[in-house]
Amino acid sequence: MSEEFLSHCRHIAGEPFVLTSAADMAPFLDDWRGRYTGKALAVLRPADTEQVAQLVKACAQWRVPLVPQGGRTGLVLGSVPDDSGTAVVLSLSRMNKVRSIDAVNRTMTVDAGCILQHVQDAAALHDCLYPLSMASEGTCTIGGNLSTNGGGTGVLRYGNARELCLGLEVVTPQGDIWSGLRGLRKDNTGYDLRDLFIGAEGTLGVITAAVLKLYPLPKASSTALVALGTARDALDLLTLAQDRCGACLTAFELMSDVCLQLVGSQFPELPKPFSRPHGQYVLLELDSCESSQHANGMLEQTVSIALDRGIARDAVVAASEAQSRGLWNLREHISMAQAKAGKNIKHDISVPISRIARFIGATDAKLRDAFPGVVLVTFGHLGDGNLHYNVGPPAGVPHDEFLANQAAVNRIVHDQVDAFGGSISAEHGIGALKRDELSRYKSPVEMAMMRAIKATLDPLGIMNPGKIF
Amino acid sequence: MSEEFLSHCRHIAGEPFVLTSAADMAPFLDDWRGRYTGKALAVLRPADTEQVAQLVKACAQWRVPLVPQGGRTGLVLGSVPDDSGTAVVLSLSRMNKVRSIDAVNRTMTVDAGCILQHVQDAAALHDCLYPLSMASEGTCTIGGNLSTNGGGTGVLRYGNARELCLGLEVVTPQGDIWSGLRGLRKDNTGYDLRDLFIGAEGTLGVITAAVLKLYPLPKASSTALVALGTARDALDLLTLAQDRCGACLTAFELMSDVCLQLVGSQFPELPKPFSRPHGQYVLLELDSCESSQHANGMLEQTVSIALDRGIARDAVVAASEAQSRGLWNLREHISMAQAKAGKNIKHDISVPISRIARFIGATDAKLRDAFPGVVLVTFGHLGDGNLHYNVGPPAGVPHDEFLANQAAVNRIVHDQVDAFGGSISAEHGIGALKRDELSRYKSPVEMAMMRAIKATLDPLGIMNPGKIF
Repeated sequence: MSEEFLSHCRHIAGEPFVLTSAADMAPFLDDWRGRYTGKALAVLRPADTEQVAQLVKACAQWRVPLVPQGGRTGLVLGSVPDDSGTAVVLSLSRMNKVRSIDAVNRTMTVDAGCILQHVQDAAALHDCLYPLSMASEGTCTIGGNLSTNGGGTGVLRYGNARELCLGLEVVTPQGDIWSGLRGLRKDNTGYDLRDLFIGAEGTLGVITAAVLKLYPLPKASSTALVALGTARDALDLLTLAQDRCGACLTAFELMSDVCLQLVGSQFPELPKPFSRPHGQYVLLELDSCESSQHANGMLEQTVSIALDRGIARDAVVAASEAQSRGLWNLREHISMAQAKAGKNIKHDISVPISRIARFIGATDAKLRDAFPGVVLVTFGHLGDGNLHYNVGPPAGVPHDEFLANQAAVNRIVHDQVDAFGGSISAEHGIGALKRDELSRYKSPVEMAMMRAIKATLDPLGIMNPGKIF
Repeated sequence: MSEEFLSHCRHIAGEPFVLTSAADMAPFLDDWRGRYTGKALAVLRPADTEQVAQLVKACAQWRVPLVPQGGRTGLVLGSVPDDSGTAVVLSLSRMNKVRSIDAVNRTMTVDAGCILQHVQDAAALHDCLYPLSMASEGTCTIGGNLSTNGGGTGVLRYGNARELCLGLEVVTPQGDIWSGLRGLRKDNTGYDLRDLFIGAEGTLGVITAAVLKLYPLPKASSTALVALGTARDALDLLTLAQDRCGACLTAFELMSDVCLQLVGSQFPELPKPFSRPHGQYVLLELDSCESSQHANGMLEQTVSIALDRGIARDAVVAASEAQSRGLWNLREHISMAQAKAGKNIKHDISVPISRIARFIGATDAKLRDAFPGVVLVTFGHLGDGNLHYNVGPPAGVPHDEFLANQAAVNRIVHDQVDAFGGSISAEHGIGALKRDELSRYKSPVEMAMMRAIKATLDPLGIMNPGKIF
């Protein structure tokens, strides 16, 4: 049976693009963080949407489950197959063309397999900004960004991947092509199917192309690192910065002193901006459509008011592009510093911004009660209410040994998130990793609606099974 | 049977809130534009979400169709019942409380029956802006705004009602309550049900409350009316204004000279900003989070560059709040001037912004071919690609007589919209009015997915039947 199916796939995509040997398939089966390796019947590498449609039709006919895959940088085991070896991986990496750019409409139409950084670069060539930005941008693809509703550092000003998409082309679980590549800011003609496919993690269909929203390229930006006593002070700084800078405020990243110490010890070559430690730090960035003078002036004024009012304790405003890069390096090296120091228990959570300080205080206390001496590496996109709340072992306890507490730690953190009206997955999605957590915290009414939609759009259950549900 | 049902409804909502006499029901049955009056078995006026849930359960049990209704200002016959007299109207007007405001999280939680203007006012009391704004804001309600994904004048900067909503509370067609009142900027836990209910025009459930997104109140704004030769010039002005002003640009409204002449003749007391006529005009507004000096300076520079480059022919920059009001009055009196002059054939359409000038040129030509002397009253939210493209009779032809051409005119305009990759309903929705047009222009694949979702979430078909489908 599977030989017949594979031969049909070869007929559609061409011999070289149906991989079945272990060696050929290996690069498509590993989890990004190396926690898991799946098995597959084959890896399919279609050249265009028509081939995707035909391949999905074949999967439906032979009842072969399929796992859509982009850059495979996801963090929740959403784009790798399970270990049954019955599924095919549908890699969109060959579909990587920018189809068109319309600088007046501020849109670009791209294949799902386009790498995020290439999309950013193509937009910049037309003096436009595609604002989605994240650590994996050199590898991740637009299809994956949309399927997981990617976030990153630009969300505060520009929104998630969802807000940056106007239209989609999707191959349905029946192998039909839905051509919804509209470049419209306003379109109230029926149900919002676009936003249903966005964030569905490939469980409802395969996103094959998208119309992305562009913005004018900012003329200048200005960066500061502000030292504060507490997370509560960071909230005051956020309100101040939003009131004074409005949409010019493009990043507002929190990191605790534990984070900065960790980066300092693992990467001693990075700058040390303050002579003495403070409780918390905020990296904030302003963009200006006017001039660097405007961006700098606004940032300096905001920082100076924060110092005057006692919100901030100290601050460094970058005087050059290089200095700004240096400050961002501190933020962006936290994850790497953690990885070097040893494995820890990670959470990608959000709560209403106003409750963040209380959430951190209460959750830290609960964890310290349960695991005395535990190390809390807390940082994230405070302006979005999104924390990467990571839990490491007490001094002297081996990292691997501490990981045995994962389930107990997750329970404490996620129960707290739930109590604070938050989300157990702010920007990474559910995948296979958080599936059980999802059904624990979502209401039965919501789960029932989600299951009903899944069952009606994908009645054979072939689209990325075992993910989300 | 229906007596038993009504008696059960009275038990749930209380005697005075189940209206059945013709006189009591009359105010809930008329179309806003007076084109139609429906019939109902009763008008139900629940006090809270629990009552809505019980009433919907009763409707499901007795198979009574229900029509959710907010301020009844919709323009596509979406919130009035058909003339069978078998449906009940479910009016949410008594559910009009602001439940809470969180100025640090920049969110407010409101009942669906809250009037838009009251929401704006409540936000302003906390130095926050709820940016949704439209002509009907003194009457329309948040539930209706969300169910129709309302647009209006703030979309260019802040997006439609959809982009301004973080969470919903919904009563499902089964009478269950989905408590999705999350105040989170990032939440990637499963399917985006929120955006499915937004814009569903009450066909999938009843929105009973929402968490709305707030912004800092701008410190100042500045308004100009710019005279241009053609719509093509208006596109150049838009690109220029976006590049120079970024997110400070909050409104960019196009109106043709026909519009301004019409307003001038019907409302001679309004200002006449230019001594001689030009082809097109753009009303543009900037907001600043800094100062009125900043807003004025940026606007004056932009206008002056547009004049220098020959994009603009003349311009008036408002020197006061009163002058700004006067310029806005010209824009906002177009619909009223049209109504005074007599009925015309209206279209609420969008196309990609870059194609607007060509769309207007080509569509005007086709209509003039088919109906020599026809008067085209074209205005709208150019920055969103949204035009109110209205067609009036040639001089001497009575308005009522010309309306007989409605179907033929619609066909020409909507075929053109389709050819230009546009939408036949940019911001008004489908309702009962555009149902047949929808199935004409949507692809069978998209219609099939929409019908599948409707059938699975509302298997009894009791939710606002005859709307959208």
